[in-house]
Amino acid sequence: MLAVRFVLVRTSHPGNIGAAARAIRTMGYTRLVLVAPHKYPHPEASAMAAGADNVLDSIVVVPTLVDAIADCRLVLGCTARRRGVSLPEITPRDAAVQVREAAASGEVAIVFGNERTGLENEELIRCHAAVHIPADPSYSSLNLAQAVQVLAYELRLAQLEARPLADAGPKSDPPATAEQMEYFFGHLFGMLDDIDFHKGRSPVTIEQRLRKLFLHANLDQREVRILRGIFDDAQRMARLAKDRG
Amino acid sequence: MLAVRFVLVRTSHPGNIGAAARAIRTMGYTRLVLVAPHKYPHPEASAMAAGADNVLDSIVVVPTLVDAIADCRLVLGCTARRRGVSLPEITPRDAAVQVREAAASGEVAIVFGNERTGLENEELIRCHAAVHIPADPSYSSLNLAQAVQVLAYELRLAQLEARPLADAGPKSDPPATAEQMEYFFGHLFGMLDDIDFHKGRSPVTIEQRLRKLFLHANLDQREVRILRGIFDDAQRMARLAKDRG
Repeated sequence: MLAVRFVLVRTSHPGNIGAAARAIRTMGYTRLVLVAPHKYPHPEASAMAAGADNVLDSIVVVPTLVDAIADCRLVLGCTARRRGVSLPEITPRDAAVQVREAAASGEVAIVFGNERTGLENEELIRCHAAVHIPADPSYSSLNLAQAVQVLAYELRLAQLEARPLADAGPKSDPPATAEQMEYFFGHLFGMLDDIDFHKGRSPVTIEQRLRKLFLHANLDQREVRILRGIFDDAQRMARLAKDRG
Repeated sequence: MLAVRFVLVRTSHPGNIGAAARAIRTMGYTRLVLVAPHKYPHPEASAMAAGADNVLDSIVVVPTLVDAIADCRLVLGCTARRRGVSLPEITPRDAAVQVREAAASGEVAIVFGNERTGLENEELIRCHAAVHIPADPSYSSLNLAQAVQVLAYELRLAQLEARPLADAGPKSDPPATAEQMEYFFGHLFGMLDDIDFHKGRSPVTIEQRLRKLFLHANLDQREVRILRGIFDDAQRMARLAKDRG
C-alpha cells in the first residue's frame, strides 16, 4: 500500500533503522520516515538493511513528528507503555484493518518512538490511537525493529485478505472419493487376512482403527495408489509363501 | 505454553540468537534450543538478548535436529523457500492453532534454519508442515530473529484466544513422538524392501510421499503399534516366500 509510511522517532541505534527498513520491505512497504534520528546515515543501518536498498535510498529525515505526519489522515502510535494521555488502545490486527480502510483515501502513518523512552506525550496526542502489541506483561518490551516487523506483517495480512482470492497454487492430486476409500479398505483388510495378521482374533476393532486412521489422513488419489501397490506386493509375497508351503 | 520450544539450526550470527531469545520472551516463551550454532556462547548473543536472561540461561545446545526434537509430537519448520521436499505449507496463523492444540498433550517444536541456507532437506522431512510467513515475493527474506518474533506473536495470540478445550472424550493414546515416527519409517521402508516394492526404481520419491502421508496423519502410539504389527507380518510372509524359493 503506497499510502502507508512507517515513522521512527528519535531512534537511538542505527542498526534498528536498517533492521526496520528490511522488516517493512519484506512485507512490501518501502516508505520510512525518520524524525530526529540520533545517528543517521550510519554503516550499521546499511548493514542491517540487508539489501533493502530502495527503502534506505528513499528515507526521509525530518526534525519533528509534525513534519512527518502533516498530510496524514490516520496516525497510529505504537507504544509498549501507557502514558498520562488517554488514547484508544488497539491491537495490531485491528490497526491493520483501520490502516487498510484509511489508506484507500489518504495517507497513513505508523509511528514508533525511541527504543528506551517510547513516544513523548506531545507526540502521542497527535495519534488517533495507540497500538499495543500483546506481550507477556512481565517482559513486554519488543526490540524496535521487531515491533515494526509485527505491524508490517499484520498490515500485509490485512491487505492480502482484501484481495480477490488468487489461484490456489501448485496442482495437487484430487482427494480420494468415498467410493475409492471403500475399495481401499477392502484391499487393506484383504491383505491383512492374507498375511495372517489377525491370528484368530476378531478383526473388527483393528478395522475400525484403520478406517479412522486413513480417513483422518485425507488421502489423495496418488497416495491411495501407492498404498494399494504396497498391499498388492504384500499379498503377492504371502501367496508365494503359502503356495510353497 | 510450557510445551513449546523454539529450535534454531546452524545459526551463523550470535546476535540473532540473542534477538530471538528476546523475541520469544516478549511473548511469554522461554525455551530455546540451538542445533550446532556457529558461535555460541558469544557476547553479541547476550547483548541482543536485552535482559531476557532466563531464556539464555536455560538454552540447550545439541549437535543435530534429531536430538532437538526426539520427544516432540509436532514439529513445524519455518522456511522462506520451497525445496525439493513436498510438505504441507501453512501460515503462521494456522500454525499457531495447531501448536495450541498439540501442546495440550505433548511437546511441540518450531524450527528455524540457517540465515542464508535455511533448513536442509533431511531436516525438513522431519517436520509435519512448513510454515511460510506471507511476504512480498520480490523481497521475502525476513531476518531470522524477526521471523521468530512473528511466529511467537501468532502463538501468543492463539493462546489468548483459546477457549477452554472441549473435553477430549474417551481417553485416547498419546501421540507418537518424532523419535517413534523415525523408528516407524525405518520399519516401513524396510518392509517395502522385503516385499520388493520398489522393483529397481529409486525409493526416494515414494519414501517422501509416505513420510508426508503418515506425519500428516498424526498417528497416536497405538496406531503406530498396529501398523508396525502389519509390517512385521508382511515381512514374515516375504521372508517365508523367499526362503522357500
